[in-house]
Amino acid sequence: MKNLVVMKFGGSSVATPELMKNIARRILKLQKKEKKKIVVVVSAPGKTTDHLIKLACDVNRNAGGRELDMLLATGEQQSIALLALAISSMGGKAISLTGPQVGIITDPHFTKARIRQIHPGRIEEELSRGRIVIAAGFQGKTESEEITTLGRGGSDLTAVALASVLEAEVCEIYTDVEGVYSCDPRIIPTAKKVEVITYDEMLELASAGAKVMQSRSMEVAKKFQVPLLIRSSFTFAPGTLVKEADMELEEVVVTGVTHDENQVKVTIPNVPDIPGVAAHIFGALARKNINVDMIIQSAAEGGINDISFTVRKEDLSPARSVMESIRKKFKSQTAVFQPDVAKLSIVGIGMRSHSGVAARMFKALARSGINIEMISTSEIKVSCVVKRENAVRGVKALAKEFGLNN
Amino acid sequence: MKNLVVMKFGGSSVATPELMKNIARRILKLQKKEKKKIVVVVSAPGKTTDHLIKLACDVNRNAGGRELDMLLATGEQQSIALLALAISSMGGKAISLTGPQVGIITDPHFTKARIRQIHPGRIEEELSRGRIVIAAGFQGKTESEEITTLGRGGSDLTAVALASVLEAEVCEIYTDVEGVYSCDPRIIPTAKKVEVITYDEMLELASAGAKVMQSRSMEVAKKFQVPLLIRSSFTFAPGTLVKEADMELEEVVVTGVTHDENQVKVTIPNVPDIPGVAAHIFGALARKNINVDMIIQSAAEGGINDISFTVRKEDLSPARSVMESIRKKFKSQTAVFQPDVAKLSIVGIGMRSHSGVAARMFKALARSGINIEMISTSEIKVSCVVKRENAVRGVKALAKEFGLNN
Repeated sequence: MKNLVVMKFGGSSVATPELMKNIARRILKLQKKEKKKIVVVVSAPGKTTDHLIKLACDVNRNAGGRELDMLLATGEQQSIALLALAISSMGGKAISLTGPQVGIITDPHFTKARIRQIHPGRIEEELSRGRIVIAAGFQGKTESEEITTLGRGGSDLTAVALASVLEAEVCEIYTDVEGVYSCDPRIIPTAKKVEVITYDEMLELASAGAKVMQSRSMEVAKKFQVPLLIRSSFTFAPGTLVKEADMELEEVVVTGVTHDENQVKVTIPNVPDIPGVAAHIFGALARKNINVDMIIQSAAEGGINDISFTVRKEDLSPARSVMESIRKKFKSQTAVFQPDVAKLSIVGIGMRSHSGVAARMFKALARSGINIEMISTSEIKVSCVVKRENAVRGVKALAKEFGLNN
Repeated sequence: MKNLVVMKFGGSSVATPELMKNIARRILKLQKKEKKKIVVVVSAPGKTTDHLIKLACDVNRNAGGRELDMLLATGEQQSIALLALAISSMGGKAISLTGPQVGIITDPHFTKARIRQIHPGRIEEELSRGRIVIAAGFQGKTESEEITTLGRGGSDLTAVALASVLEAEVCEIYTDVEGVYSCDPRIIPTAKKVEVITYDEMLELASAGAKVMQSRSMEVAKKFQVPLLIRSSFTFAPGTLVKEADMELEEVVVTGVTHDENQVKVTIPNVPDIPGVAAHIFGALARKNINVDMIIQSAAEGGINDISFTVRKEDLSPARSVMESIRKKFKSQTAVFQPDVAKLSIVGIGMRSHSGVAARMFKALARSGINIEMISTSEIKVSCVVKRENAVRGVKALAKEFGLNN
């Protein structure tokens, strides 16, 4: 739809009536000055969802499924009604629509439903009547009219999916930062804000620890080529545009550096080099829902391997018990856990066509006296595991090496 | 439906997780011990509705209409989900249904919608699967899928309407009192709890100041002959049954005495006795939404009348300005306002066939030295306006006269 903009506001942007009014003003400004048609997607206000989950657990320790979705969906329903009221008090024409009213049809997997299709008839009708549509994020309905929720990051997903089906010019994601930075501004105060970035780079940044948007929504945006604008709900700074790669973009070799301190390195020394060992180890971890990030297997000598991998800190305890069962089965040595590590990553679509980028990274770290414990690479990312005490120094060295600060 | 019971719980009964669990236990007990099919209707928890209205007014001083209903409907939706979770944590099988899911179709008058019809298919299906149905009170949807609310007392109305369409054995209304009392237990500690009462008597008691249930729901219960059981959600006392009159009932002359201190008496002296004066006065009051209760016109002498009536205290100020405009138009004397009055009423279906009941009331008041300022009667009610300071003494005298205490 020509001139259509989808705007998505998270819970912290609608936490109080005052913030709600700020957003209403912002929406009306975009409508009036730039003559845009507008669909707004909002999350539940502030801590509402956490509060509701606590209430649910108070009456049922195993709260979940259909009834939890019935409960949680009320959070966004409150946001949309209040925002529509705020807009109309300023003379605007707005209408709120719940997930079911918006026409978001999902599968029946309560608390983590997937969108099957969207019937945009109602939204299109309201837009054609000159109304601003305020849609509830995070929710939908099944074909049998049951209320479902989409799981973590669900409101982003609603925004991207609506922008796709309505063919919006852009999907604006409002957050508490002014966009995507080439490195963490808390570490490098002169960090550059990235003006344009590709979906793939954003996906790698997300998996490398940057938390602007969940991978799931980014994947959908990439799949349907929805241009995203990540920007602040508190300022009018231009933000970061996320879109498909083009020639101009490819000139930049490294777009960002990121670090992730939420890592534990696990090493199993002297694993017998027989077929199926790795499959068994990582199958056992997967069955316990333990997400494994980097995996390194050293060269086999004399039929014996070392296998190292990283898991998230919160999975340390279940990972220990899986390792204990592995040790018994394969009569291998006791696994070594190193909880004091961090992962440094550089991400950039230009790596595809520029050689030697990884080598520059290793050299820069070496110049700072930082030892590399593990290395892992993808087409547009290089990650190194280092001692956690070296993480901040490493980010500074890499930002300097690749010119990511002003 | 055979063996079906509708149970309705108000907001104070579901205000905390602990209370929620108490109710869940009570529902399961009824299901298991007495083998009942059960539909539960709940209101929003505690002060939720007030809190939501405050939020709405914070963003829009004139909050109302569709968006207010969108907001308020979330309160009951939270209650039904939490109650269903509480029941399932105790091993019961329950399913929550919103007003729209329950199939309550209303007209499109937001914030005060009227029920047009109910499609009970979904409820019947869930009941036949052995589930306890937890239905959201106070809400429904229009034919175009808009969420509506039913206005004050809406949850009672939902319960009565569902009990009617499902042909329930009884509709149990749970409150914070143990039933209907023949007089206010705070004044007469030995007040009798009424075991059986007719719809008409309950309607008269409601309009006379007793606040167990709103008239609107009582009228629907009477129209569709839904037996109501008013009882406490905190005890297992048997409560008060409300049903149509039968022979046994008619032996009781006076079922209850009630008093209402929220009254102001207004007198316009020397109104000219010309046609249309009364219509003009009460038309002007009605246009300002001022509810007039008792109206007395004294006999005309020499073409001059006194007109007296009562209004509720909160209408005192608008009533004054209406009276001032009347004074100018008819050049009558300034109206006299007496804010220190109270209304005493006796109600009983037996009055229809027993003469002299009003006289016994007047004599009893006279014996206590209480002067009567106004009198008004209906087929099953006699009301007297007295000085407020005499109200409590009057209730005691009437309770004694008609044997309403133990």
